[in-house]
Amino acid sequence: MHSKRITRRAGGGELDLLRQIRAHAGRLGGRALRLGIGDDCALLGLRPGEELAVTTDLSIAGRHFRIDWHPPESVGHRALARGLSDLAAMGARPLAAFLSLGIPRQLTVKRGRNGSWVDRFMAGLFRLAAAHQTPLAGGDLAEAPLAVADIVLTGAVPAGKALLRSGARAGDLLYVTGALGGSAVGLTTLSRGPRGIQARRWTTPTGVPDAFRPHLFPQPRIAQGLALRRRGLASAAIDLSDGLSIDLAHLCEESGVHALIESRALPLAQGASLEQALHGGEDYELLFAARPAVRIPRAIGGIAVSRIGILSAPRRGKTPIQIVTESGTEPLPPRGWQHFS
Amino acid sequence: MHSKRITRRAGGGELDLLRQIRAHAGRLGGRALRLGIGDDCALLGLRPGEELAVTTDLSIAGRHFRIDWHPPESVGHRALARGLSDLAAMGARPLAAFLSLGIPRQLTVKRGRNGSWVDRFMAGLFRLAAAHQTPLAGGDLAEAPLAVADIVLTGAVPAGKALLRSGARAGDLLYVTGALGGSAVGLTTLSRGPRGIQARRWTTPTGVPDAFRPHLFPQPRIAQGLALRRRGLASAAIDLSDGLSIDLAHLCEESGVHALIESRALPLAQGASLEQALHGGEDYELLFAARPAVRIPRAIGGIAVSRIGILSAPRRGKTPIQIVTESGTEPLPPRGWQHFS
Repeated sequence: MHSKRITRRAGGGELDLLRQIRAHAGRLGGRALRLGIGDDCALLGLRPGEELAVTTDLSIAGRHFRIDWHPPESVGHRALARGLSDLAAMGARPLAAFLSLGIPRQLTVKRGRNGSWVDRFMAGLFRLAAAHQTPLAGGDLAEAPLAVADIVLTGAVPAGKALLRSGARAGDLLYVTGALGGSAVGLTTLSRGPRGIQARRWTTPTGVPDAFRPHLFPQPRIAQGLALRRRGLASAAIDLSDGLSIDLAHLCEESGVHALIESRALPLAQGASLEQALHGGEDYELLFAARPAVRIPRAIGGIAVSRIGILSAPRRGKTPIQIVTESGTEPLPPRGWQHFS
Repeated sequence: MHSKRITRRAGGGELDLLRQIRAHAGRLGGRALRLGIGDDCALLGLRPGEELAVTTDLSIAGRHFRIDWHPPESVGHRALARGLSDLAAMGARPLAAFLSLGIPRQLTVKRGRNGSWVDRFMAGLFRLAAAHQTPLAGGDLAEAPLAVADIVLTGAVPAGKALLRSGARAGDLLYVTGALGGSAVGLTTLSRGPRGIQARRWTTPTGVPDAFRPHLFPQPRIAQGLALRRRGLASAAIDLSDGLSIDLAHLCEESGVHALIESRALPLAQGASLEQALHGGEDYELLFAARPAVRIPRAIGGIAVSRIGILSAPRRGKTPIQIVTESGTEPLPPRGWQHFS
């Protein structure tokens, strides 16, 4: 967060925002963070033998979230959750987050006791950051015609030990954490209901009805990713951000394998259809492969782990993913959830 | 660059773009980059005893650049230059860049032999990245109602050796690299001229008239920052992104000092007024302080270094910066260039 840039462009609202951000960001701690907001760059330290993991995720109003559907706290939470989930998929521990935020002036206007849209956005982001001891170490802030947030997550992982998409091989078994399709269920309901009225009052993960929690406040599987990596359980991993059918296709492509999954083995979220579990993105669960001899626990850190299929050598002319349903075995083409487009 | 995300949203144009980016990004090398585009995170390695420097810079159409004024190559160059300049100010060597790009569909349509707007944007970015051996290691890509680019730069610096804003003390002398106000000169001319006609053909730093080069293709002072840090010359440093009057105020604030500068000592860019040198931002030169006993060379890596003033203990009730002009000594309030607002 370059104070120099903010100062110039800032009206009173933006300066307030910067002060709030600096105050909060400092409190999150993080021993890796050696220099935070206020200089040209932030400085981070790694432990000896560690590599740095970096991921960036762009969230744009109308595309990744809707001002009229999503509570601002959820938008901030989800923006950070996307990046944390990428770290989880590598088995990395979070070091620090960075936020580049473009924001229309009207979203900085205070409304009611929870403050402005951007105050609430930051509150949601900071709550999740605190839960993962991830300080906000810097970023950029500018007025913009529409809300846009780019989140950068940095993490650390012992050199050569990161969970990659490319480590699986034929014969490995496939697993997922948690339940699938829950985010799609919540989003579908949000898009049908009386827009924005009720949902805007759901400001925390605990204050939201069960059916909306996976969509509004998804929990990145940091602890599960760390456990998989530390205990040497997974041969490959990816996070389920775009939907099982797409993300599994990526894992297959990078590992040079094909996959067979069983529809009845898929852990459906409450109210979710098979369609939603296969193609509804943004569940932020982990999909991973493991050698057949490796014993995978039924739960990791309180989150269920389900075996959903097996990998095989690629077969010429076949689609990479096949699914076994009641009506037989059929190809599963990658098909993503279409968000708001 | 998460291929998973692109795949879902992509029409043919975006997939083409992703392929181009992956192809180019790989060629830039960079030994620190252990895993680039194609997994959930990129992986970077530091040398023993190094810290990581991270900076993010948001560029938004209509705010940081104009589609109708700036050649797309310049927009890409400038976006990357902002981040590189932050690394330069810390004395860090660049490791890798990340790009989150939101882009309207029409800017991906091919026009003429140089390709689409975004092709040309990427060409400008890659040219500067190659000049600084900085691979593009990842990012995100999404369709957006307006062009927005967040650039993340990572760099490495020996632990505890980064040039900070806060290291200066009373008695230190003040220096700048290069010339000041050149970017403001170019921008003013661009904004007056027949818009976009001529400038859109200036696609490279060498192909642009001298008067526009500092604005359209500013050169980040990486080599100068590294030399200052390695040779132990500077006590504090900041890059001139917002203008001397603002950036010097930040250095003074962080170091707890006041400053006196001499107007006739300022190295004016060709055609630049004193106003433009003091308040015109985006010169991306380095402003640094040095102990009075330290001998500062007249040039570093072919770029002139000018002594412009001296730092003093803060005096109660005085403005932090005073300037000596022909008419005497007067306060210099921080005042930034107003861009396009």
